[in-house]
Amino acid sequence: MMPWPITYDDVLAARDRIAPVLPPPPLRSYARLDEALDMHVLVKHENHQPTNAFKVRNALTAMTTLSDDEKRRGVIAATMGNYGQGLAWAGRELDVDVVICVPHGVNPDKIDAIRGFGAELVIEGETYDDAVVVQDRLVNERGLLALHGVNHPMMPAGAGTITLEIIEQCERLGESLDSMFIGVGGGSQAVGAMTVLRHRSPNTRVIGVQSAGASAIHDACRANDPAIHRKPDTIAEGLATGQTYEQTFAPLRDGLADFVTVTDAELLAAMRLIMTSTHNLIEPSAAAGVAAAINLRDAQRGRTVAVILSGANVDMRTLARILNEL
Amino acid sequence: MMPWPITYDDVLAARDRIAPVLPPPPLRSYARLDEALDMHVLVKHENHQPTNAFKVRNALTAMTTLSDDEKRRGVIAATMGNYGQGLAWAGRELDVDVVICVPHGVNPDKIDAIRGFGAELVIEGETYDDAVVVQDRLVNERGLLALHGVNHPMMPAGAGTITLEIIEQCERLGESLDSMFIGVGGGSQAVGAMTVLRHRSPNTRVIGVQSAGASAIHDACRANDPAIHRKPDTIAEGLATGQTYEQTFAPLRDGLADFVTVTDAELLAAMRLIMTSTHNLIEPSAAAGVAAAINLRDAQRGRTVAVILSGANVDMRTLARILNEL
Repeated sequence: MMPWPITYDDVLAARDRIAPVLPPPPLRSYARLDEALDMHVLVKHENHQPTNAFKVRNALTAMTTLSDDEKRRGVIAATMGNYGQGLAWAGRELDVDVVICVPHGVNPDKIDAIRGFGAELVIEGETYDDAVVVQDRLVNERGLLALHGVNHPMMPAGAGTITLEIIEQCERLGESLDSMFIGVGGGSQAVGAMTVLRHRSPNTRVIGVQSAGASAIHDACRANDPAIHRKPDTIAEGLATGQTYEQTFAPLRDGLADFVTVTDAELLAAMRLIMTSTHNLIEPSAAAGVAAAINLRDAQRGRTVAVILSGANVDMRTLARILNEL
Repeated sequence: MMPWPITYDDVLAARDRIAPVLPPPPLRSYARLDEALDMHVLVKHENHQPTNAFKVRNALTAMTTLSDDEKRRGVIAATMGNYGQGLAWAGRELDVDVVICVPHGVNPDKIDAIRGFGAELVIEGETYDDAVVVQDRLVNERGLLALHGVNHPMMPAGAGTITLEIIEQCERLGESLDSMFIGVGGGSQAVGAMTVLRHRSPNTRVIGVQSAGASAIHDACRANDPAIHRKPDTIAEGLATGQTYEQTFAPLRDGLADFVTVTDAELLAAMRLIMTSTHNLIEPSAAAGVAAAINLRDAQRGRTVAVILSGANVDMRTLARILNEL
């Protein structure tokens, strides 16, 4: 039995905790997308979440496990944006003080939203790793509780609620899911999905997708070497991780049916296709699943597949640049 | 007592009929939007509807009143796009054949979506009025039932369910609504809103908004002359009506607290602000409320107002053009 960071019951418990304030976003299909991919594509609208990104599930799942004492201490995390928005939103819901550490250069819309949800923002350093150093310093100085965005046991449980909802929505729609294409930043969505599928739909294959410009986990899984690092260079900031994480490495290595990478150009083409066919705004990382499905079209032709529109927090200048390539 | 096309009970009945398949989209606020407008802005996300536009409420409300005999005949309507998508979607839900008449030049994404929902599409003529002529011809030739997109008694009842949900969501959020800014194409949203507010929140003022390039109803209300026509010339195709409608003219003239127009440039600026602050894709007509709120900022400062993001069906080339003006 391979090591596995969470159980199916963890996902069920997470769902019970988040459901009162995060109703399931719809699962829909779009004729134009189906035609373009030659598959039946079920689209999970995490872009409809109150923070416009799935990470609010992870943040709320973690924060709802805290004791009253821990809540009074306040929480802190380093983030590239969407997890920070999720924590800030959850903090406002649960009346917990939240401090968010980001490096310089993070998407300004994400910064504004974190502030808008009432969190304290500390902008320092140049990379995510720098922000983690700031986080650790403030934990020591101010007694805050750190909630790591990936290597926390509750993150895959929170993200797993996406797949739990998808499976239940498929059952209501009478759909049988052959494959899920899931973007891998830290791996919480994919590990959460595999946890759920083993119990609810064991024949559904999970295909992991990383950006070719941030392929550390993909490369590490292929080489079975968790020490591999890659400096991220991708337009998809939600996928811009440069290393493996202890909690998700083995499950990804052992559990994924396939693990592929997509280039920035493929992400942008997929982004345009998604926006044209669904009329939902998405950020580049949310296009990972469709980008991979396009590349695997021949192998997946005619199948029923699910993709997760994981976030919508693209800034307008980036969006303009993307659309100008039409 | 002024003439009024529908009752509050019509809206309640419409809600009962549509609620099983159209759950209420969220009502949210965004700190950055509040700051930009210096108001507390409650945003109703009709862009989350399965057709990405509120018109699906009107279409389903009308179609659910049909007898089995009428359903077997099949229905037909002329449309500029969003109502056609709504009817096509409702027809698929209820297993009713739908024929949609559009003129040449309608937004290609809307055409694709209408076909995608399985409706028969007839593209003929140059204007909406031409499409109505085609519709009438096919009614005679094929015995179809015409469901007019504005002048049908169920349209304001369907659109009124938006405001019914907003008021109930406000009650849950503890919000008290001073004003609603509502775009007027045919007037169903505004007349539906006034119908609900008289019963549920009589102190909430409704401010109608038309495009300055399609101001027939605005001008007709100001002049008390329902015969006024204006050839529409606006980027907001959802507001591009050129005449008054018997059913909505008197209620708009007598019931609106104010009636204003906004230029295309103001619509585009509002569209950019909405996308930047909410990260939802919208079409130009969906920006009418925010555009008017910007213009009335001094008078409305500090108030709690609602706007309806009525649709998201913008094509990517138009969107690129808009963003390039950043």
